[in-house]
Amino acid sequence: MGHVELDAQHPLTSGLTSGSRLVRAYRGDRPPVTPVWFMRQAGRSLPEYRDLRVGTRMLDACLDPALASEITLQPIRRHGVDAGIFFSDIVVPLRLVGVAVDIVAGRGPVFDKALRTGADVAELTSIDLDRLDEGIAPISEAVGLTVAELNERPNGDSPATPLIGFAGAPFTLAAYLTEGGPSKDHLAARTLMHADPGAWAALMEWCADLSGRFLRAQVLAGASAAQLFDSWAGALSLADYERHVAPASQRALSWVTGLVPTVHFGVGTGELLGAMHAIGVNAVGVDYRIPLDEAARRIGAAVPLQGNLDPALLGAPWEVLEAAVRRIVDEGRAAPAHVFNLGHGVPPETDPAVLTRIVELVHSL
Amino acid sequence: MGHVELDAQHPLTSGLTSGSRLVRAYRGDRPPVTPVWFMRQAGRSLPEYRDLRVGTRMLDACLDPALASEITLQPIRRHGVDAGIFFSDIVVPLRLVGVAVDIVAGRGPVFDKALRTGADVAELTSIDLDRLDEGIAPISEAVGLTVAELNERPNGDSPATPLIGFAGAPFTLAAYLTEGGPSKDHLAARTLMHADPGAWAALMEWCADLSGRFLRAQVLAGASAAQLFDSWAGALSLADYERHVAPASQRALSWVTGLVPTVHFGVGTGELLGAMHAIGVNAVGVDYRIPLDEAARRIGAAVPLQGNLDPALLGAPWEVLEAAVRRIVDEGRAAPAHVFNLGHGVPPETDPAVLTRIVELVHSL
Repeated sequence: MGHVELDAQHPLTSGLTSGSRLVRAYRGDRPPVTPVWFMRQAGRSLPEYRDLRVGTRMLDACLDPALASEITLQPIRRHGVDAGIFFSDIVVPLRLVGVAVDIVAGRGPVFDKALRTGADVAELTSIDLDRLDEGIAPISEAVGLTVAELNERPNGDSPATPLIGFAGAPFTLAAYLTEGGPSKDHLAARTLMHADPGAWAALMEWCADLSGRFLRAQVLAGASAAQLFDSWAGALSLADYERHVAPASQRALSWVTGLVPTVHFGVGTGELLGAMHAIGVNAVGVDYRIPLDEAARRIGAAVPLQGNLDPALLGAPWEVLEAAVRRIVDEGRAAPAHVFNLGHGVPPETDPAVLTRIVELVHSL
Repeated sequence: MGHVELDAQHPLTSGLTSGSRLVRAYRGDRPPVTPVWFMRQAGRSLPEYRDLRVGTRMLDACLDPALASEITLQPIRRHGVDAGIFFSDIVVPLRLVGVAVDIVAGRGPVFDKALRTGADVAELTSIDLDRLDEGIAPISEAVGLTVAELNERPNGDSPATPLIGFAGAPFTLAAYLTEGGPSKDHLAARTLMHADPGAWAALMEWCADLSGRFLRAQVLAGASAAQLFDSWAGALSLADYERHVAPASQRALSWVTGLVPTVHFGVGTGELLGAMHAIGVNAVGVDYRIPLDEAARRIGAAVPLQGNLDPALLGAPWEVLEAAVRRIVDEGRAAPAHVFNLGHGVPPETDPAVLTRIVELVHSL
C-alpha cells in the first residue's frame, strides 16, 4: 500500500494550525481558551444549510465540492467554533467505490442488499479499494476549498482554523452493510461476527482500509485532525469489541497515524472508553451518559477528552443549560486538555442562537 | 388509592408456585436446577404464533383473552421454559384508558400526537386512571385462562408453573408518548425532563400509576411474579436516572411490592444496575453487554440476577452458542441465584429448536 512511505513527501498544511486551540488540545497541551465544536454542527439546525440543500439529495451534496465546502464552513462563520468538521457521511466512501447505497431522509442509509453470508461478504470485498483513488477528487477538492477559507481565520496562536477530517469506523460501516440499512440493535452485524468470524474479519479489514483511505485523502488535502466515528460500537460487549472490532479500528487509523492528531467517538461507549483509546488515538470523545471526570478515571488521566453536553439540554432554559456547560468545563479539568462538544450530534430542531451562546460561554470560562 | 389495604383480602395463587424454580430464584433461594425463560419467547419466532396472528392487529391480539392466553402458553409447551411471560405490549394500558395509539408492524407504537409541552402533559394526565379498572377485564381474563393451564404444569417443588406479569416502566412509556412513537435516542423525553421538570414529574407519576395498576391487575388475576421493563433507560446518565426516573419506577412497583417477587430490566443499563436495584426490586435483569459476575460486583452480591445471552449468538453454530451458555451459567454463580435468559428479546428470525436446546442445556448444568 505504501502509505507510510508517502508521509514525508506530502506538505501537510497542519503547520498552519499547530498553535490552534483544537490541535493543541488534541495533542494534550491545554490551550488558554477551551476549544469548542459540535458534532453535526454542519447540518439541519442551520437555516442557511436547509436553504442550500433544497432539491439536492444528501449523497449528491456530499459529492459536490463547492456545496460540501460551503456547508462545512457555515457553522464556523456563524458560531465562531474552533474547528470545522468535514461535511460528509459514513457511507460516502462506499458510494465512491461503487456500492449501491442511498440516504433516505428520516431513515438513514439504505443499501440495495444486506450482507448476510460469507459469499455476500466475498462479493463486496472483491472490490479493489484502489477504485477509491479514482473517485476521491470531489472530496479532495471540497477539503481544499474549505481549508483555503479556514487559512484566513486565525485561531489561538495560529493563522488558521483547523478542519477535522471525518470517517465512520469499520464496525459502524459493517453494521449498516450487514443490516442493509439502519437498525436499533445492529443484530445482523453481531450475528455475522459470531456465526462466521472469518467472513466478519474479512469484512472489517476491507471496511478499515476503505475508511482509512477516505480519512487519509482528507488529511492529504489539508485536514488538520481526524475523527473516527464508531456510532454503533456501544451495541457491543467489551469482550466482543476488543476481539472483533478494535483491531480493524486500529487498522483504519493507521492510515493517518503520525500525520495529524486523531480522536475517536462512539455513542453509549462508557464501558469501552479504555479500549477505544488503546487503538492508538490521541483523544477520546465521550457521550453524554458518563461525566468527563469519570471518563478520565476510566481511560487514564493523560488522555485529552472531547465532549459531552447532553443534546437534550439544548432545549432547556438558558440557566439550566449554562449550569450544565459550566459543570462540563469543570469536569473536563480532570483531563490534560478538553475539547468542548456535545455528547451526540446537534438535533435538527436546535435553535442555532443557543449554540453560538454556548461557544461564547465556553470561551469565557 | 387503598392498594396496600387490599393485599390481605386477595387470595393470591402464588402459593401454588412458591416452590417453582423461578420464584425461588427471584427470592434469592437458588434452586437445584437453574430456571430459564426468554424475553419475547411468546412471539414471532414461533410458527404457531405467526399462524394465530394472521389477520389480527397486535393490540387486538393483546386484548383478546383467549388469543393472548394461547400466545403466552405456546413457548412454555414447546420449549419447556420455567415461566410464562404475559403476552402484552407496553402501550396496552395506555390504550385501555383511551389514549389513541396503534402498533405498526416493523416500526412500533405510534400515537396520534406527541406530548411536547406542559399543556400536552396536563391533557394526558387529566385522564382518571380509574378508567383502567373499567377496561382491564380482557387482561384479567387472559391471565386467568393462562394460570388455569399453568396450574396443571408442575415445576421444581411446586404443582404449578409461574406466570410473570408484564409492564413497561414509566420512562419507557414517557419516551414513546413524548416522541409520539419509537426513536433512536429518546431525545424528546430527555428534553422535556430538563426543559419542564414539573410537567415531566407529573407525566412520570401518571405513567407510574398506570403501569403499577396494570401490573397489579395481572398479579391479582394470578401472575406469580412481575417484570418491569424499562427498555430505554439506557439512554440516560446515572444522575438523570436517579433524579428524574427512579422515583417513578419505584412508585410503579409499589403497586405489587410484597405481593409477588419483582424483576427489573433495561437495555444498555450497565451504568444504572445499582440504581435500578435500589428502587426496591427482588432481582435485576442484565443485558448482554455486561458479564453477570461484573453485574454482581456492581449491584452487590446479594441480588439475584437474570440474563444475559447475546441474542446475536442464537444465529451462531451450536458449539459457539453452547460455550456462551456455559460461560453465562458459570458467571451467574456470582449471584445468590440466577434466572437464565437472553440479554434482550428473541429475534423474530430465531430457529425455535435452538431455544429448546438451550433450555435443555441450562437444565442439565
